[in-house]
Amino acid sequence: MSRNPFFSGLSRRALLSALATLPAFSGGLLPVSASAQTATSGGLPSWNDGPAKQAILDFVRDTTDQSSRNFVPAEQRIATFDQDGTLWVEHPMYTQVIYCLERVPAVVKAKPELANVEPFKTVLSGNREAMAKLTMPDLEKILAATLTGMRVEQFNADVSKWIATAKHPRFTRLYTELIYQPMLEVMQLLRANGFKTYIVTGGGQDFVRVYAEKVYGIPPEQVVGTMGGTKFDYDKDGKPFLTKEPKLLLNDDKAGKPEGIHLMIGRRPTAAFGNSPGDREMLEYTQAGDGARLEMLVLHDDATREYAYGPAQGLPDSKVGTFTQALYDEARKNGWTVISMKNDWKRIFAFE
Amino acid sequence: MSRNPFFSGLSRRALLSALATLPAFSGGLLPVSASAQTATSGGLPSWNDGPAKQAILDFVRDTTDQSSRNFVPAEQRIATFDQDGTLWVEHPMYTQVIYCLERVPAVVKAKPELANVEPFKTVLSGNREAMAKLTMPDLEKILAATLTGMRVEQFNADVSKWIATAKHPRFTRLYTELIYQPMLEVMQLLRANGFKTYIVTGGGQDFVRVYAEKVYGIPPEQVVGTMGGTKFDYDKDGKPFLTKEPKLLLNDDKAGKPEGIHLMIGRRPTAAFGNSPGDREMLEYTQAGDGARLEMLVLHDDATREYAYGPAQGLPDSKVGTFTQALYDEARKNGWTVISMKNDWKRIFAFE
Repeated sequence: MSRNPFFSGLSRRALLSALATLPAFSGGLLPVSASAQTATSGGLPSWNDGPAKQAILDFVRDTTDQSSRNFVPAEQRIATFDQDGTLWVEHPMYTQVIYCLERVPAVVKAKPELANVEPFKTVLSGNREAMAKLTMPDLEKILAATLTGMRVEQFNADVSKWIATAKHPRFTRLYTELIYQPMLEVMQLLRANGFKTYIVTGGGQDFVRVYAEKVYGIPPEQVVGTMGGTKFDYDKDGKPFLTKEPKLLLNDDKAGKPEGIHLMIGRRPTAAFGNSPGDREMLEYTQAGDGARLEMLVLHDDATREYAYGPAQGLPDSKVGTFTQALYDEARKNGWTVISMKNDWKRIFAFE
Repeated sequence: MSRNPFFSGLSRRALLSALATLPAFSGGLLPVSASAQTATSGGLPSWNDGPAKQAILDFVRDTTDQSSRNFVPAEQRIATFDQDGTLWVEHPMYTQVIYCLERVPAVVKAKPELANVEPFKTVLSGNREAMAKLTMPDLEKILAATLTGMRVEQFNADVSKWIATAKHPRFTRLYTELIYQPMLEVMQLLRANGFKTYIVTGGGQDFVRVYAEKVYGIPPEQVVGTMGGTKFDYDKDGKPFLTKEPKLLLNDDKAGKPEGIHLMIGRRPTAAFGNSPGDREMLEYTQAGDGARLEMLVLHDDATREYAYGPAQGLPDSKVGTFTQALYDEARKNGWTVISMKNDWKRIFAFE
């Protein structure tokens, strides 16, 4: 485990490179608008016919038909989904990192002595050029200050309020509207066929839990993420409470994904969905089980409707933070199915 | 967190004091006999009428009746159960500790150099007097050697084989037959009413997961226990696997129980069941939530059918490792319901 307690799997570049391009912090006061539409269960209406859609339908039939030699008993039907870039938009920056940066004013308001202390001073300045130069230790201080030190209920309330109003700079939509409708349909199809669906994310477990049930239909106990410790204590009236501690229990990225899956689920997934090298070990671990398995990777190749990056852009691996040529090559070698957003998805967002 | 990576919540005395009294290690070759009977869902046939049974029935009605002001939406119905002494017999020694001691010959067979190294030498000798004098660091070495260092699948296979044959010294029954039938009925009643039932144990999470689904109807993902890390790696053919590491992530005892519940479930329980000071914080945390809550403690006061210990024996707290007078007093103060095995349970085991 690396020394960075919150996002050790991520590079500073991936976290901050886009910062200077963000137009302005969001955080308006608009109410939540309609969240992603519910798909008719059983169908994949937002998918074009093609090998990706067919792979999903074949897998479901193969694992749930009692006469199939690959039949999987209901209790063993586990499907795991990466979040950022697999279930919702991860560009220009991870949503949770935006949350942390936007929380800084509130943190400084509660502790005014931080106003003249770096890196808080720079974040408060709003100077994007300066912020893009923050170092990894700077970022760690921001993550620790905004994700830990408060009671669990306070954190949930803070995230809940933010996620209900903050908007994506390009789409000017709530982040929770930027869920990929085709992936929601896959989750619904799997659940309708007896699968338990899990999010397995490098993001903070407690952060994602706040909205996962409403947005994805996935309850808190089925969110596996980067895990921090909590500390049990009593208030002055003897009432117990839990405080979020700056203590990393598991960095749920790369090799940490199968480790987190074992910790939280205790079974090997039957199907796994990802989009980046951080998901590689999860897909390998899934595939190493017996019987029918499904491994899929979302390729971001649609600059018009979403983004194009990684091999779709023709960039060398050293220049891309996510779906690399090396991962694409491994997918071909292992028989993993690559989902082309451009070709396989009739519709990307529910609001289209 | 204490330095003992596996059973830091337990005292050496609690682990070993009874060792000299054990007649012989079990581990015969008998096949698994019938496991605990399934209760008719909805009833509590093994319970006598009385305040404990009534408290359970009242709680279920109060939380599931839509017209009740204490109605709890289905997704928030979480019930947590301690295992040792709450769901099955914990005397004369925790079953998992017996497993670890009985695994020592196999560990030494694989690593013959340990045969003349303490504490393995003493355990191999079979000298119960000497074994009862093992120190806490000795015990830690035994736990680490028998619970870590192997692949996850190997550990599961080892425990699975042992639990199918090892017998309790007094009852000469499989440990999995020594489940309290009334508690199985409570779990079934709660599940029939939309509750998710969890085990929250100070024992090893991976150990309990091996038999929890078969014995309690609780799937691996609903077992919260003391958690060790795993390490992802590849074998020489490039196939990925997980190895159990001697690294403590969370000691799921005392304050660790609410912390483990937050980590693994992410919601506060609506009902919690325990029997010892290790369960105190879990019950307090449960009670601190809004609306109707249920907290229950099993009192071992039936020396004829099971055991009598703690306040039931009239021993001072300093002499008891489990249900203490102090806990009993807190239960009265907080309105927790104490279950008398002697008076509240018509039948303790399914085989009676």
